[in-house]
Amino acid sequence: MNFASDNTAGVAPEILAAIKRANEGSAAAYGADAVSRRLERRFSDFFEHPVRVFPVATGTAANALALALLTPPYGAIYAHEEAHVATDECGAPEFFTGGAKVVTVAGGNAKIAAKELARQLDAQVARVPHNMKPAAVSLSQATEAGTVYTPDDVAAVAAVAAKRGMKLHMDGARLANALVHLGCRPAEITWQAGVDALSLGFTKNGALAAEAVVFFGAVDADQVAYRRKRGGHLFSKMRYASVQLEAMLEGELWRKLAGHANAMADALARGLRAVPGAQIVHPVEANEVFVLVPEPVAHAFEHAQVGAHRWNTGTPVMFRFVTAFDTKLADVRRTITIAQSAAGDKGSHPRQRRRRA
Amino acid sequence: MNFASDNTAGVAPEILAAIKRANEGSAAAYGADAVSRRLERRFSDFFEHPVRVFPVATGTAANALALALLTPPYGAIYAHEEAHVATDECGAPEFFTGGAKVVTVAGGNAKIAAKELARQLDAQVARVPHNMKPAAVSLSQATEAGTVYTPDDVAAVAAVAAKRGMKLHMDGARLANALVHLGCRPAEITWQAGVDALSLGFTKNGALAAEAVVFFGAVDADQVAYRRKRGGHLFSKMRYASVQLEAMLEGELWRKLAGHANAMADALARGLRAVPGAQIVHPVEANEVFVLVPEPVAHAFEHAQVGAHRWNTGTPVMFRFVTAFDTKLADVRRTITIAQSAAGDKGSHPRQRRRRA
Amino acid sequence: MNFASDNTAGVAPEILAAIKRANEGSAAAYGADAVSRRLERRFSDFFEHPVRVFPVATGTAANALALALLTPPYGAIYAHEEAHVATDECGAPEFFTGGAKVVTVAGGNAKIAAKELARQLDAQVARVPHNMKPAAVSLSQATEAGTVYTPDDVAAVAAVAAKRGMKLHMDGARLANALVHLGCRPAEITWQAGVDALSLGFTKNGALAAEAVVFFGAVDADQVAYRRKRGGHLFSKMRYASVQLEAMLEGELWRKLAGHANAMADALARGLRAVPGAQIVHPVEANEVFVLVPEPVAHAFEHAQVGAHRWNTGTPVMFRFVTAFDTKLADVRRTITIAQSAAGDKGSHPRQRRRRA
Amino acid sequence: MNFASDNTAGVAPEILAAIKRANEGSAAAYGADAVSRRLERRFSDFFEHPVRVFPVATGTAANALALALLTPPYGAIYAHEEAHVATDECGAPEFFTGGAKVVTVAGGNAKIAAKELARQLDAQVARVPHNMKPAAVSLSQATEAGTVYTPDDVAAVAAVAAKRGMKLHMDGARLANALVHLGCRPAEITWQAGVDALSLGFTKNGALAAEAVVFFGAVDADQVAYRRKRGGHLFSKMRYASVQLEAMLEGELWRKLAGHANAMADALARGLRAVPGAQIVHPVEANEVFVLVPEPVAHAFEHAQVGAHRWNTGTPVMFRFVTAFDTKLADVRRTITIAQSAAGDKGSHPRQRRRRA
Repeated sequence: MNFASDNTAGVAPEILAAIKRANEGSAAAYGADAVSRRLERRFSDFFEHPVRVFPVATGTAANALALALLTPPYGAIYAHEEAHVATDECGAPEFFTGGAKVVTVAGGNAKIAAKELARQLDAQVARVPHNMKPAAVSLSQATEAGTVYTPDDVAAVAAVAAKRGMKLHMDGARLANALVHLGCRPAEITWQAGVDALSLGFTKNGALAAEAVVFFGAVDADQVAYRRKRGGHLFSKMRYASVQLEAMLEGELWRKLAGHANAMADALARGLRAVPGAQIVHPVEANEVFVLVPEPVAHAFEHAQVGAHRWNTGTPVMFRFVTAFDTKLADVRRTITIAQSAAGDKGSHPRQRRRRA
Repeated sequence: MNFASDNTAGVAPEILAAIKRANEGSAAAYGADAVSRRLERRFSDFFEHPVRVFPVATGTAANALALALLTPPYGAIYAHEEAHVATDECGAPEFFTGGAKVVTVAGGNAKIAAKELARQLDAQVARVPHNMKPAAVSLSQATEAGTVYTPDDVAAVAAVAAKRGMKLHMDGARLANALVHLGCRPAEITWQAGVDALSLGFTKNGALAAEAVVFFGAVDADQVAYRRKRGGHLFSKMRYASVQLEAMLEGELWRKLAGHANAMADALARGLRAVPGAQIVHPVEANEVFVLVPEPVAHAFEHAQVGAHRWNTGTPVMFRFVTAFDTKLADVRRTITIAQSAAGDKGSHPRQRRRRA
Repeated sequence: MNFASDNTAGVAPEILAAIKRANEGSAAAYGADAVSRRLERRFSDFFEHPVRVFPVATGTAANALALALLTPPYGAIYAHEEAHVATDECGAPEFFTGGAKVVTVAGGNAKIAAKELARQLDAQVARVPHNMKPAAVSLSQATEAGTVYTPDDVAAVAAVAAKRGMKLHMDGARLANALVHLGCRPAEITWQAGVDALSLGFTKNGALAAEAVVFFGAVDADQVAYRRKRGGHLFSKMRYASVQLEAMLEGELWRKLAGHANAMADALARGLRAVPGAQIVHPVEANEVFVLVPEPVAHAFEHAQVGAHRWNTGTPVMFRFVTAFDTKLADVRRTITIAQSAAGDKGSHPRQRRRRA
Repeated sequence: MNFASDNTAGVAPEILAAIKRANEGSAAAYGADAVSRRLERRFSDFFEHPVRVFPVATGTAANALALALLTPPYGAIYAHEEAHVATDECGAPEFFTGGAKVVTVAGGNAKIAAKELARQLDAQVARVPHNMKPAAVSLSQATEAGTVYTPDDVAAVAAVAAKRGMKLHMDGARLANALVHLGCRPAEITWQAGVDALSLGFTKNGALAAEAVVFFGAVDADQVAYRRKRGGHLFSKMRYASVQLEAMLEGELWRKLAGHANAMADALARGLRAVPGAQIVHPVEANEVFVLVPEPVAHAFEHAQVGAHRWNTGTPVMFRFVTAFDTKLADVRRTITIAQSAAGDKGSHPRQRRRRA
């Protein structure tokens, strides 16, 4: 069992097969190969809109590169206080932008509410050049809480941003999971809702390393290319990155993989909700389940090595379960059984017994 | 035929097999998996010295990250005027160091001579803080001209650097080719010769994407980790990068692959040397052949699509041929035949004929 | 009347006289002149401790340069949410550090409480290299609210920082005002309390432009010099900056000037406290008075052009009054009279009357 | 005697008087004062063209800020190999641009010849995104060799730049000296000749610290303001910087001061030319004289402490003499006499005698 992260999952067999297929003879380097050259057509079809696509090595790189195009060095990027760009990228946005600032916004379920964002932006009287210039907003789709922005949610934030001349970035490290949940077309939660640049992540979705920055509107493509290169993200053997991105679109592989992950999270959440004392923290809309459990259940989880991360330091204990394309239903069921058993049989917990003795 | 670059080559079957083997179940992310954790032991064996190893996505990233550890933002990095870090990385060293300067050094066959480096360093009176601080020297091994530094060459440069408190970096994008040529142990041209940090490149050697920074001495490993992360180079599914690096060491796969590439370059150079009017430009010590040819031969190469890059704009025309692990001897032979035929039959060249008419 | 800022004040005659005195013949450039060379001795006496002193053009530059020495590009700087480095320097700390992050800490009266800082630092589980490295704390002395840290306050914060390997910076743009209030020796609120680097500001105190970074412990002076130079802050005619710093120490000019400013703030606060409906917001410990006043008083202030800034957008209206070395007691008295008159005579306010009519 | 640099000169009395005049009462901070607000009108008159003017603390800051507006982080700046931006600013351009590269161009008398620049730019095949993007050219007016670009020289370089989409920067640290030499209007060697941005330096000319970036064409003024602020170059008491710039224009003070400096250099050069064995190295067109002298003269200069810098390490010895607004004719004459005396009396030199003995 490994509910630690969708990063701990392996690579889907379809992706490995695609890599193998790409390994035929020589091919032009640095993206001049046939697969890479047709990538923008593939994704323009996917998004029903002409797009520019720039593969990079990681989601962190995608976010930082995208934000570097949207934000000057003296700009401020507004993101949720739990957003990956704010907490988990060791300053990659600051690095790639040349010193911009990530300003955090509070909000339930790890989502930025358009109203709160507007309030926060308006509360600060802009004094040029003393304050940094509000330049971009970054949304995570799905969020770090496993919740999802609807097209209307995105559009509302986009309106707040556009009104102030700010650009909208979407961190789509789990875009596929969000799309499966919403059942909408990719266009609806991206450019149609006002997104300027997207970090499109297929690695958590089941690829080996398939991340890209996607621009929906006019963009200085040379600038992206220069910035990607100096970030060390222009793969020489690009075909192997491109073919993963392409394979995810073929027959909607992304949907199949994310669909399974989401279904496993749903099943897990349903089961845990029925466990006495357990409480699901956020709506389960993607492939993550945050759950508060009594201590005996926490001990049981850890004893059984379910792999989920403890998400707090107090009691009740919060766990984050992440499901992936290869999560087994048997593991979900076993986890639920462990929880039920521990919850219903508090007295039998070894440490509790010891304490009483 | 594709003599354009070793980057246009595919991936060796042993590497693909290793990737497939690594795809067993889940594994801890971000380098905490078993393969990644044993990587430093493997490479410490390889170098007969304790080393720290940090995989990244590209050779450009490896160079820039290594240099960022050796050079402050106000430092100067001395490199050959044809070095990749000076000409081909779009300022990645400048970016990762926070604004250091790459100062170029001239030298035959794309090699820095220790004496010339010393002369150049001494000619500039250091005036703190007006001049940038000479901080590092970077050598390419093998060089951009397909030549190789001997252990003594490296040690002489290292002595010049050390005497002035400067650090020594080696860009080993083609380290395997150099090792095969020298027939020496990896230790001899790296830490024993005074190298502080190495960009170890196995991608050109036949991997999919297997690059790493190797530190031989004391290094602030946390700093490397932080800088790699904010550069967007910490792979989440690190096992797939690590396993490529490891597979190259198994049974000395690197040697087999680079040995073939070097042998093909040798064969090509031998053949071209016998072509009337052709002239090999640099000693052929790795997997590159630079050759000056008369115009009819140039036309024949281009007509036959040998794939080698034209390397100048004048006459005689210079071509760069790069061989790889998968270069076919038949292609080498065919190229030689094309050259011989075109050289021996000058009058028959269409444009030449036209000119005479 | 001009209570807008101590930046709107002019230059004290003693400072102008010192500049004129320095204008004798030629002098070595870039700090090699006699005045600049003895500056560190002067300030070592002032602080009763050997110090390194680096003049720069502005307080923003002093803060950013100091922080660049204490914080790596991947570091986090903890500062109060109202601190100048967090809100008013357009990302100068981010720029000079190469992309560090300023993390804000809440706290009453614009002060960081050691306990709250500790709590915030401990709440965040450090995950190398995903989070930025907590590297420095920056305190403003006096604060943006016109309050002052006691030596014990500073020491408590320093202890929290030191325990976690973090450095302590003090933004002393109004250090003189704090010293006058505390009546302590400069040593007591700086190095003896655990401060590593100080931005020493004498411009608000009455100089033309006299700002410097002061280091109390071991520091790589070459690094400071290099970073200052590349920031464009190495004055060629340094003597004119140095002589201002020196002149402030002569006969404790700084104390005389700051003493007057503080006394004026005291007098103003005393007077305003007696105004019906007025409320002093923060303890008045330096040269700033924040006061909430009823709307008629606000209108009267603006009609009389007292120059104080409105500090909020709601009602009651908050004003910030800043006094300086040249604030006239007559202006203070007139301001109080205006307030009393407007407060006691609400009905007579033109707009109010109109509304009733 | 002090011929070391025009930076070692003091401040002209007219400038000190202007500073004193500006010290009347309070004035709005950060450039909102009356003097600062009319500065752009004054300089628009001076240049006969609408300009934007941004005062900063030093010439290094002016160059770096100007170049940051003209060059992206992935850009290349072409400058003469002896240019201040290339050799003497410790990477300030690299810092402010976020990692651009300064590429050096050779040329006699420290001048870039348009033809050589074109040749160098054309020799490098631009390969996006591997090479840095040629973005700007920077000319020093007057040059580091004390020579001057004519309007035609500038226009020729500007044409080379414009043809390739590159911008033209002029480092005018000694612009006044160049103007006096050329006898032309400021417009003729700046915007009319194709200059986009100028670093206007009046400090060497006799100010205390009066440097500014001047933009002639459309420029994002907010961007300049933001970048200046985060560089720590927005003076709070701006009026004292602005008034110096303004005072230099009043009654053409700049011309009077530079005219004297140039005349002193002329006189010195004339005198030294007549000294046996002495050789003037570059045309004397501004306020610098480079002269090669026999060793006895060198010893005599050093013994008499003329203050001029030795500019090489071999023989004959090269000295750089710099004159300033306050250079005394008596010092010039004495220097010539010293040289003549030492040159005519070689045998009497102590070391020479010793050698013979």
